[in-house]
Amino acid sequence: MRILLINGPNMNLLGEREPDRYGGRSLGDIEAELVQHALKSGIELECVQSNHEGELVEWIQGARRNCAGIIINPAAYGHTSVALRDALLAVALPTVEVHLTNIAGREPFRHKTLIADVVLGRISGFGTHGYQLALDALNEHLNH
Amino acid sequence: MRILLINGPNMNLLGEREPDRYGGRSLGDIEAELVQHALKSGIELECVQSNHEGELVEWIQGARRNCAGIIINPAAYGHTSVALRDALLAVALPTVEVHLTNIAGREPFRHKTLIADVVLGRISGFGTHGYQLALDALNEHLNH
Amino acid sequence: MRILLINGPNMNLLGEREPDRYGGRSLGDIEAELVQHALKSGIELECVQSNHEGELVEWIQGARRNCAGIIINPAAYGHTSVALRDALLAVALPTVEVHLTNIAGREPFRHKTLIADVVLGRISGFGTHGYQLALDALNEHLNH
Amino acid sequence: MRILLINGPNMNLLGEREPDRYGGRSLGDIEAELVQHALKSGIELECVQSNHEGELVEWIQGARRNCAGIIINPAAYGHTSVALRDALLAVALPTVEVHLTNIAGREPFRHKTLIADVVLGRISGFGTHGYQLALDALNEHLNH
Amino acid sequence: MRILLINGPNMNLLGEREPDRYGGRSLGDIEAELVQHALKSGIELECVQSNHEGELVEWIQGARRNCAGIIINPAAYGHTSVALRDALLAVALPTVEVHLTNIAGREPFRHKTLIADVVLGRISGFGTHGYQLALDALNEHLNH
Amino acid sequence: MRILLINGPNMNLLGEREPDRYGGRSLGDIEAELVQHALKSGIELECVQSNHEGELVEWIQGARRNCAGIIINPAAYGHTSVALRDALLAVALPTVEVHLTNIAGREPFRHKTLIADVVLGRISGFGTHGYQLALDALNEHLNH
Amino acid sequence: MRILLINGPNMNLLGEREPDRYGGRSLGDIEAELVQHALKSGIELECVQSNHEGELVEWIQGARRNCAGIIINPAAYGHTSVALRDALLAVALPTVEVHLTNIAGREPFRHKTLIADVVLGRISGFGTHGYQLALDALNEHLNH
Amino acid sequence: MRILLINGPNMNLLGEREPDRYGGRSLGDIEAELVQHALKSGIELECVQSNHEGELVEWIQGARRNCAGIIINPAAYGHTSVALRDALLAVALPTVEVHLTNIAGREPFRHKTLIADVVLGRISGFGTHGYQLALDALNEHLNH
Amino acid sequence: MRILLINGPNMNLLGEREPDRYGGRSLGDIEAELVQHALKSGIELECVQSNHEGELVEWIQGARRNCAGIIINPAAYGHTSVALRDALLAVALPTVEVHLTNIAGREPFRHKTLIADVVLGRISGFGTHGYQLALDALNEHLNH
Amino acid sequence: MRILLINGPNMNLLGEREPDRYGGRSLGDIEAELVQHALKSGIELECVQSNHEGELVEWIQGARRNCAGIIINPAAYGHTSVALRDALLAVALPTVEVHLTNIAGREPFRHKTLIADVVLGRISGFGTHGYQLALDALNEHLNH
Amino acid sequence: MRILLINGPNMNLLGEREPDRYGGRSLGDIEAELVQHALKSGIELECVQSNHEGELVEWIQGARRNCAGIIINPAAYGHTSVALRDALLAVALPTVEVHLTNIAGREPFRHKTLIADVVLGRISGFGTHGYQLALDALNEHLNH
Amino acid sequence: MRILLINGPNMNLLGEREPDRYGGRSLGDIEAELVQHALKSGIELECVQSNHEGELVEWIQGARRNCAGIIINPAAYGHTSVALRDALLAVALPTVEVHLTNIAGREPFRHKTLIADVVLGRISGFGTHGYQLALDALNEHLNH
Repeated sequence: MRILLINGPNMNLLGEREPDRYGGRSLGDIEAELVQHALKSGIELECVQSNHEGELVEWIQGARRNCAGIIINPAAYGHTSVALRDALLAVALPTVEVHLTNIAGREPFRHKTLIADVVLGRISGFGTHGYQLALDALNEHLNH
Repeated sequence: MRILLINGPNMNLLGEREPDRYGGRSLGDIEAELVQHALKSGIELECVQSNHEGELVEWIQGARRNCAGIIINPAAYGHTSVALRDALLAVALPTVEVHLTNIAGREPFRHKTLIADVVLGRISGFGTHGYQLALDALNEHLNH
Repeated sequence: MRILLINGPNMNLLGEREPDRYGGRSLGDIEAELVQHALKSGIELECVQSNHEGELVEWIQGARRNCAGIIINPAAYGHTSVALRDALLAVALPTVEVHLTNIAGREPFRHKTLIADVVLGRISGFGTHGYQLALDALNEHLNH
Repeated sequence: MRILLINGPNMNLLGEREPDRYGGRSLGDIEAELVQHALKSGIELECVQSNHEGELVEWIQGARRNCAGIIINPAAYGHTSVALRDALLAVALPTVEVHLTNIAGREPFRHKTLIADVVLGRISGFGTHGYQLALDALNEHLNH
Repeated sequence: MRILLINGPNMNLLGEREPDRYGGRSLGDIEAELVQHALKSGIELECVQSNHEGELVEWIQGARRNCAGIIINPAAYGHTSVALRDALLAVALPTVEVHLTNIAGREPFRHKTLIADVVLGRISGFGTHGYQLALDALNEHLNH
Repeated sequence: MRILLINGPNMNLLGEREPDRYGGRSLGDIEAELVQHALKSGIELECVQSNHEGELVEWIQGARRNCAGIIINPAAYGHTSVALRDALLAVALPTVEVHLTNIAGREPFRHKTLIADVVLGRISGFGTHGYQLALDALNEHLNH
Repeated sequence: MRILLINGPNMNLLGEREPDRYGGRSLGDIEAELVQHALKSGIELECVQSNHEGELVEWIQGARRNCAGIIINPAAYGHTSVALRDALLAVALPTVEVHLTNIAGREPFRHKTLIADVVLGRISGFGTHGYQLALDALNEHLNH
Repeated sequence: MRILLINGPNMNLLGEREPDRYGGRSLGDIEAELVQHALKSGIELECVQSNHEGELVEWIQGARRNCAGIIINPAAYGHTSVALRDALLAVALPTVEVHLTNIAGREPFRHKTLIADVVLGRISGFGTHGYQLALDALNEHLNH
Repeated sequence: MRILLINGPNMNLLGEREPDRYGGRSLGDIEAELVQHALKSGIELECVQSNHEGELVEWIQGARRNCAGIIINPAAYGHTSVALRDALLAVALPTVEVHLTNIAGREPFRHKTLIADVVLGRISGFGTHGYQLALDALNEHLNH
Repeated sequence: MRILLINGPNMNLLGEREPDRYGGRSLGDIEAELVQHALKSGIELECVQSNHEGELVEWIQGARRNCAGIIINPAAYGHTSVALRDALLAVALPTVEVHLTNIAGREPFRHKTLIADVVLGRISGFGTHGYQLALDALNEHLNH
Repeated sequence: MRILLINGPNMNLLGEREPDRYGGRSLGDIEAELVQHALKSGIELECVQSNHEGELVEWIQGARRNCAGIIINPAAYGHTSVALRDALLAVALPTVEVHLTNIAGREPFRHKTLIADVVLGRISGFGTHGYQLALDALNEHLNH
Repeated sequence: MRILLINGPNMNLLGEREPDRYGGRSLGDIEAELVQHALKSGIELECVQSNHEGELVEWIQGARRNCAGIIINPAAYGHTSVALRDALLAVALPTVEVHLTNIAGREPFRHKTLIADVVLGRISGFGTHGYQLALDALNEHLNH
């Protein structure tokens, strides 16, 4: 079983960018750990990141061929992209939305995402541990 | 380590109420399973439910004496109760908010909760499995 | 056939509270008369009143076992309680909403109720005669 | 005692138009039955329908000469016509507003009517039985 | 020089309808007096009234052939009719809007009219004397 | 196959009214040309126009007996008439909405029409050529 | 009988400021003409202008001692000054509001004034002729 | 003369809860001091606190029998409870609303209370000294 | 210790202006009494009033040199003046805002003031007794 | 004569993505057919699609050199992209906006597009036949 | 060439008022330096400041006689004064708006100014250096 | 010292696109001149432009390694891109926002930018001269 983990814009700066808010580990480290964690449940985790909305759209499109589900931290594009929403609607895969921070406690324009009502569920506020919770949630969902 | 699990109004009908939306197991069964799951991590889980806003307030108040954290599914009161918010602010314990359904995909008045920005994080849309994810999230948080 | 008549907060003051607006008869008198009126149609009318939101929730929950329908004057809680709405959704009984006054002509926050779209219908503006009209409406509905 | 029953636009299609929503009987049948029901209380019921806002205005105006009250299902014009409201204000007769469906559960622009706060009361959601309830309500009002 | 004076819905009840608000003289009397007043300035005043939006539209359309200007008290249709606005735009005659009452002090939906920005000017709050002021204003405008 | 072409208020002034915006040909000329164009596809086109909302409602109602579809330029009533919407819902015929101008570039109250979501589709901004496009679109729809 | 004519900020530039919009005559000339016009009706017209909100407030206050009514062109302060409103409420004299331009056709923030509902009536859009109409209106009002 | 002092939800935590914001003294201490202060003016002060909306409603109802006035710090329920408002309207006693903090400087949902326009006056921002000011204000009011 | 008492526009009419709402005593009388009351606590009270926003700003500015606190009834300017707010921020003295009436029960534009969140606290609804309460509140604050 | 046909994000999935909503033919097939249809009118149709906003901007920019007009189905970017609007303004070519579905009947955020008021006209709701209608409309426009 | 530099309310406190936000130099020092800087470009800079809206209006009016342009830091009045806007429109001189702080990052009511769309351009966020940038910008503008 | 100058979408058309609004010089010319101007102050100015949001994000990210500040004309993306904002927050360099036109005087959706409150300051309305002012402002800031 294959799952796609997508990280949106500026996530390539993890570890460097506002470490008090987002933690001090790099995206590469976090992805590596998650790949190991996934393997324990027999899941192949594919990890991608992009600062380009169009590229995120195309990865989601691509997932319809060989993935059983998607974990996505849309970052800034979650708040502004109808294209991401349309791509998720088009592939119709179970998707978990992750936010490292508790977005309800930040600027008003971060309180809503345009994909919120087309995903399976959302996990927010638990830092990078949220990715692992999302993996467990998706795994549980796919096995029931 | 002791954690308080609070369920809000109408959650006593779980298993009976709109089973297509909320699942077919009773709250008692779910709580029993969670208590076992918690014990594996050395956590004593105390489970309460009430249809009375004031009682929920008082359980939160009580937690300040002997609990390390709170997991709360505020149900309907999450959308209307400033009193719950004030109680959480007063006890200042790390709290995880759980919703069984993906509230962003339901009626507009369910999209926001008044406690959203004072909790540690939120998990929504994964049915009763969300409680277990919340427990793992809180456990991770308390051990770091 | 059994029907539950529920009156919300401050309705226990009927006859005493703003009699120009709500009429001069006590809730007890009104209920007694309605019980008689119901009996003529072979309906057993159970009458309850509470100032506690949680208690109203629990009466609604209880009705799912032995009532064919509900008549509710939610009073103030109609404008603020998502919990009442959820309880009505959970029991899924035909329900008639009654308001003694024409709420569209009062303060703006009284123009809408949170249960308005989950009830069978609404009767407002006819004083305590509205309860009898509700009984007739529900009786007609249950016999068709 | 004479009462005017006014039906607004598209009500002439009753029985034909969306029968799942509005019922399968024609307006003529319904009016005939109501006239009989009214006679039992000694009320002469005059029934009119129009798709023209101006005609509705003029029937309301005419009622000031020989009617004791008005029952009106304004249909679509209830949501858009200040002229109906002004006509009702001008004749100052006790008026009952009827809606066949529970308008609070339909499109947002149907939730409010411009006459809501100038009528005696409103009955909505009980199908064509609502006219009879309105007649009883108005009769009760005029005899007290 | 010919000027058209148009009165909208319910204005035919002047003198009868809420006399405290609108005054006690009939529309016929008022029109007769205005015709005399107009004649003094060599103006032929044509007076019409209708409760039908379509008829008002057609009178405005007709004015483009033989009138130098329009005085209109749109009454209720001023607040809801885009068709009146379009008719005024189509004939492009100098038009004065009159309201007997000070509409800024009444219900919020009366504060704006849909023709307000396409007329030459507006006079409101001076009762039936407003028609005469409008005639003077239009006369002055046409002679400059 | 018969199709009804309905034009709303002030459309009788086409050719005369703001010719820079709406073009210089009369409605009669345009209708004649469309009738010919329709005949080539074996369609009988019936053309009507009215400044009265009620009359438009009744033509729509009448179409349910002998027309396969409707083309409507609701003009001003598109922005204010729930009655037109209800009539279209009642007859449930495939309907194409036409606007001569690009209404999205005009006054804000013209940006939305109350029938927009109950029609098959909309064509706006192409002047009187829009009627022919609508005919082609409806023809295509009815033949698939 | 004495009437106070008050002009608000920037009105001292009349004749110089945007003459296409406000006309080419100076405030002094206009006032002189109005004084003569008033005298014909036996009215003593006192004319003041200020760019200072406080001064306008004080002139209104002063009028309570020796004036029968007020004509005010509040200019910019009409849209922003609660103090002017309070002063008018305090003196409780019949007041006519004048605007040279048709403010409903200008920037949105000019559509409303804070004194609109406390004055007797309003005249707008007739240029400097509006002052004379206001005088006639106030004179008529004071003599009835 | 007897006055009822009501404290709403979470006020039982005074002294413990966010002491920087609410001060370090317990509710019991504060009440004791106020009782003494009241006695000096011959007032018997009855002090109650509850976390239950229904209980607050019932204390207010009870006050109509034996109290001359009410001092209420509604805390969180002030922002969400129409039932409190209705109870205050029903008993119609002079009531002073107290807030320990300056609620205008906190979260937007705290800026308004639903009882604000039915009380005699409000005192906010002076910490627990506000209760004493309220007592003085009510005393002054009752003696004039 | 010196405290500045500032009264805003139209307060010079106290006793004369709407005495039912604001009471029948003049501002001079009230100030004299307050000066005496202040002296008992060893406070020198300086009293000023102006109808000019700029003058109020300058008195606030001046207070930074020789006053320990400010009591201000901003009247109308409280709802419209950012300049008053900036002046209060600049001098950073503890300030008490007073309103004679319960502004929450009046026109919507009076419900908020632009200084509300930069003052120490607010007292409203107790008529001229509010000034004395403010003095006590400020005195208590300055002595703790 | 050359015309550019631009399709926005996720349109590359046509035929695969929600076929009930968007139809079962691939974008390639549709484009091929349109090229043939265009040739009949002597039009060279260039077809492009991209999921990247920047690429769409650049194709629009490029069209200013060798195209007479643009047909664009902006898909998701129509609702969020000011950059597309600016590009269309910069090239100032006649442009037709196409939507396969009736966007007025979908989620609220799809009701408006940011290019709506800068295009020549819009065609929506006719599925892939809409492209052909757009071609006819543009052809007609360019030949008049 | 003469340019007028206007500073609005509370700017006389520069150097004293919130020095962390506005800097520690007095307005006199800043003006002196700017006069020197202006002289280098052959510009005579006239510097004024007032806390009175009316005075600012009059200085702007006066500039029409002998100034080539205006630099204005409207401070608080920028957010509330239509009179300043009208004065700027009346004199029609090229004007540069300056704000010392980045107003977009402060309270919401500071995000907009009422003169923003009638000035040539705006410079905000650069402290007192902004005046010099404004001078350079205006100089450049006047020489092109 | 190195500074990055970023231009957003459609800025590559400068000189060609709406020259009346944006001026007639090409971006290349403007950049060349700015590079020379910067060198006089010992600043190395790096100039980039892109129509791709992701590319802009990555240039901002890159600047954190070797630039002392950023000047950005975000063009259309300023109004829609949270990703740009997040990138600026991540690199935390002093940034100046430039707009060639006075965006407060254009379409409402251009009045706000999503980066406005995270930049040092903004310069708008001075055409291409704004870049030079931004350079001076940033230089001044970096040297203090």
